[in-house]
Amino acid sequence: MAVQNAMTADYLRSAYGGESMAHMRYLIWGDMAEKEGFPKIAKLFMAIAYAERVHAGNHFKVLGGSTSDSTVAAGGVFGTGRTAENLQGAINGELHEVEQMYPVYLNAAEFQNEPEAKRSFHFALEAEKVHAKLFQDAQNAAKEGRDMELKAVYVCPVCGHTVLDGAPDRCPICGAKKEMYRQF
Amino acid sequence: MAVQNAMTADYLRSAYGGESMAHMRYLIWGDMAEKEGFPKIAKLFMAIAYAERVHAGNHFKVLGGSTSDSTVAAGGVFGTGRTAENLQGAINGELHEVEQMYPVYLNAAEFQNEPEAKRSFHFALEAEKVHAKLFQDAQNAAKEGRDMELKAVYVCPVCGHTVLDGAPDRCPICGAKKEMYRQF
Ligand SMILES: [Fe+2]
Ligand SMILES: [Fe+2]
Ligand SMILES: [Fe+2]
Ligand SMILES: [Fe+2]
Ligand SMILES: [Fe+2]
Ligand SMILES: [Fe+2]
Repeated sequence: MAVQNAMTADYLRSAYGGESMAHMRYLIWGDMAEKEGFPKIAKLFMAIAYAERVHAGNHFKVLGGSTSDSTVAAGGVFGTGRTAENLQGAINGELHEVEQMYPVYLNAAEFQNEPEAKRSFHFALEAEKVHAKLFQDAQNAAKEGRDMELKAVYVCPVCGHTVLDGAPDRCPICGAKKEMYRQF
Repeated sequence: MAVQNAMTADYLRSAYGGESMAHMRYLIWGDMAEKEGFPKIAKLFMAIAYAERVHAGNHFKVLGGSTSDSTVAAGGVFGTGRTAENLQGAINGELHEVEQMYPVYLNAAEFQNEPEAKRSFHFALEAEKVHAKLFQDAQNAAKEGRDMELKAVYVCPVCGHTVLDGAPDRCPICGAKKEMYRQF
């Protein structure tokens, strides 16, 4: 078991729950964007869904340990409106993680001297900053009734860093090499 | 908004959270089974992960409505042991849904006269019965150090019904046609 402290473990489970729900709603909203005639925004949703999968997997593995059940309390966003409205839900969720949830979880992991949890929260926090910005760009387009302009989306499989049109030589968050990025 | 009652809405959000976390842990445990040398058990995990995605999507769409945030309390299972142990976590989670969670949620949706929620809970309940059985078969194999015997797994995209080796002419749970099943 990689985590020694019950409070940090609780935050990892909560973050896992939040990321799992975010992954799922981006798959759903991506399908809805595709049907609304925004294939590029749909692609962005699918790529960021994968980034949230990376975050969830990191938290789950840092928790480690043997089989156990828990009731998990986590933040979710709901709604099946038009794409511009769903993107507002996505922006709200990302900003909550960037401004409130991950800074507090990261601070707690530091306070409890849990380096692996700290790393996992840090990766997510930095990636969510990019997600908030990308969803804002998508919403600006959708509000004008047009699709986003992008060729491809690249996601780092280690930390979830998300970037349009081309991967950097090294991931700016975790240092992973360009070749590791997954293309959408 | 398809749901009129706050209690049924709460159960739909909780079930969405539980299904989203189940989807995610089956993806993770599937990757681990692959690495442990059980590609067929890995395939089963990936197929059932998709079935849980179907359930989560159904609950989310029945909730419908405009963008809103909620704190969601939902059951999760954790642990990164060997595959035989992870499968015990999977069995525990499925049996909880079959014996406790979905019967109670279904009963509440019936009591509150919410036909769409009832349908969504019914689909999940019936599919989880099959999942519990399939994971038990997988665990019997893994405990003997061998992989499962299966050619392919088929999942109904409407209700999550999961079946080995060939789809039925009509889904026994929701009536969807054979051609709609997704093959893994
Ligand atoms: Fe995330
Ligand atoms: Fe994000
Ligand atoms: Fe990275
Ligand atoms: Fe399910
Ligand atoms: Fe299931
Ligand atoms: Fe079905």
